[in-house]
Amino acid sequence: MTEFIPPGSRFHALSSPFAFKRGGTLLGAHVAYETWGTLDATASNAILIVTGLSPDAHAASNATNPAAGWWEAMLGPGKPIDSDRWYVICVNSLGSCKGSTGPASINAATGEPYRLTFPELSVEDGARASVEVVRALGITQLACVIGNSMGGMTALALLLLHPGIARSHINISGSAQALPFSIAIRSLQREAIRLDPQWNGGRYDDAQYPESGMRMARKLGVITYRSALEWDGRFGRVRLDSDQADDDPFGLEFQVESYLEGHARRFVRYFDPNCYLYLSRSMDWFDLAEYGGGDVMAGLRRIQVEKALAVGANTDILFPVQQQQQIADGLRAGGAQAGFIGLDSPQGHDAFLVDFERFGPAIRGFLDAL
Amino acid sequence: MTEFIPPGSRFHALSSPFAFKRGGTLLGAHVAYETWGTLDATASNAILIVTGLSPDAHAASNATNPAAGWWEAMLGPGKPIDSDRWYVICVNSLGSCKGSTGPASINAATGEPYRLTFPELSVEDGARASVEVVRALGITQLACVIGNSMGGMTALALLLLHPGIARSHINISGSAQALPFSIAIRSLQREAIRLDPQWNGGRYDDAQYPESGMRMARKLGVITYRSALEWDGRFGRVRLDSDQADDDPFGLEFQVESYLEGHARRFVRYFDPNCYLYLSRSMDWFDLAEYGGGDVMAGLRRIQVEKALAVGANTDILFPVQQQQQIADGLRAGGAQAGFIGLDSPQGHDAFLVDFERFGPAIRGFLDAL
Repeated sequence: MTEFIPPGSRFHALSSPFAFKRGGTLLGAHVAYETWGTLDATASNAILIVTGLSPDAHAASNATNPAAGWWEAMLGPGKPIDSDRWYVICVNSLGSCKGSTGPASINAATGEPYRLTFPELSVEDGARASVEVVRALGITQLACVIGNSMGGMTALALLLLHPGIARSHINISGSAQALPFSIAIRSLQREAIRLDPQWNGGRYDDAQYPESGMRMARKLGVITYRSALEWDGRFGRVRLDSDQADDDPFGLEFQVESYLEGHARRFVRYFDPNCYLYLSRSMDWFDLAEYGGGDVMAGLRRIQVEKALAVGANTDILFPVQQQQQIADGLRAGGAQAGFIGLDSPQGHDAFLVDFERFGPAIRGFLDAL
Repeated sequence: MTEFIPPGSRFHALSSPFAFKRGGTLLGAHVAYETWGTLDATASNAILIVTGLSPDAHAASNATNPAAGWWEAMLGPGKPIDSDRWYVICVNSLGSCKGSTGPASINAATGEPYRLTFPELSVEDGARASVEVVRALGITQLACVIGNSMGGMTALALLLLHPGIARSHINISGSAQALPFSIAIRSLQREAIRLDPQWNGGRYDDAQYPESGMRMARKLGVITYRSALEWDGRFGRVRLDSDQADDDPFGLEFQVESYLEGHARRFVRYFDPNCYLYLSRSMDWFDLAEYGGGDVMAGLRRIQVEKALAVGANTDILFPVQQQQQIADGLRAGGAQAGFIGLDSPQGHDAFLVDFERFGPAIRGFLDAL
């Protein structure tokens, strides 16, 4: 059970007890966050970023941690999210293993990691934890809340449950509800972890670790995060050099297999399996229709925000652009000035992490016009 | 190690030794096949069907086996593949466990199943085995060869390596080469089986059986055989009744998960894991560019056939319709009168097995015009 906390992280102590949507509470829990830029005198230039499943709060280099972050090209002085103008906060998701309290954290009451005794986590719980950080920083209203992927769900929950919390919203490759293809993929990823005998009902340690299950889960993730189109051009049918190829008769042979293997190896020991299960399941549960009498559009219409942009990649199979179109339509029906952009990025769901040429101008354009 | 042989199967003894493309031979091997209709006096009304990875040769009910087959709606008297007019042969793939010699078959020399001592199987080997059946039935030239999915690869190999074997060809949801997205999916399916400790390097039995690995592989298969669009309409976010749902905190909750579980359970014990590995890998290896100096279109142009139809579903993510378009373009460039139809079936790769309303007329129209 390891947590992976970026140096220079700041921590916010959550209200205690912190009650979860589905029941259960945490005592003395916290979330990690980082900031960029300077909050202005009226606290009116703040932007909150809520993330996908795996990123930490270190979205970009800053005063406390000069290392490049996972959104380095997007956030900083003069960048699309311009820290010369905006005061930017990025919160590590509640339930993660990257600084915020999660299943891998030690429960002070027992001196043991929470593991599966962690309360059932919903996207809404992460939203509320993020709002607590915003309030603690003295911000009444955000200029914008930006959510990527799972963070797109978190942002919608946050907007709906905390009316007036933000004047505007950018939803990037997010969705207002999980649909069955994505549920099926995530369910299979979780099953791969749970089937690994070393998962052991969540009671693994560094020596007895569900490495195979995590590797399978990550490979399936990477397959669904990218797109066939990109891989055709990137890998084609190129084979590994004979010295890289596997001797095993069913071992690695093609470059695409080696690419997946490399991704899996880099991930497997750097994300806690129980945290993965909790965050993954929270996405399956997410459904704004709960707040709209069973109608997702009615749920979206309840969100009060002045301006919004929903943007995604046309090649995304996990959070297809129809879901971003739906978000824009729903927010517009609720009174927002809301736009939708489907970008021709070949990289699928992950495009917002790599295709800055397309995502950069879309986000810069929206923020510059605020 | 179990074989699953439909009653009423016929068997053809392959030439012995039967040499494999990548080396190795089999002695005394055979393939299972079934037929429908009557061969005419000039042996000119024969159609060969070559199948996807898992089907047996029992494509439809016939005199020797009245049970419904896997293509019952498509093949029979008055059906799109009309057995009143055509003499139809369906061959179970070499390497399968459904009647043809494969890794689960007993090696007479040892009295043990071949398991991983089975020669490395290529699509081309299956094509040649099918041609031997056709020849043995006294047929010099087929009226048409129809290949579905993996069978679409088999059919192209058969046409290229046996010039003049068929006057026409229908390629259904097939491809001229495996591309990296499909390779990645299949590689992960094989890894799931190989990672299951009970696979044991191929030395499992009915008691020690890689059930978890096969279940994972099958679920991933079903996810990629269908489409997100179909599942949105079919399952949405419907949950299981509380008495069906799993008590396990990460167990089944949504209908789509239960659907996958049902599919997996029906498959796991009815397909041999080693056969699965061999057939799956043969698809990754398939590349008509080998016969075109590295250019897949040049490979396709070498195929000599008078008329051809390539057809697929626009929602197919495993064998995307661009690949069927490519087949039609390549065969046309080689001199065939070749058409392409991309059907708006919501069911993805599996559409040819279920969407008879769309696939039926396309196939009937082509065959009726012969």
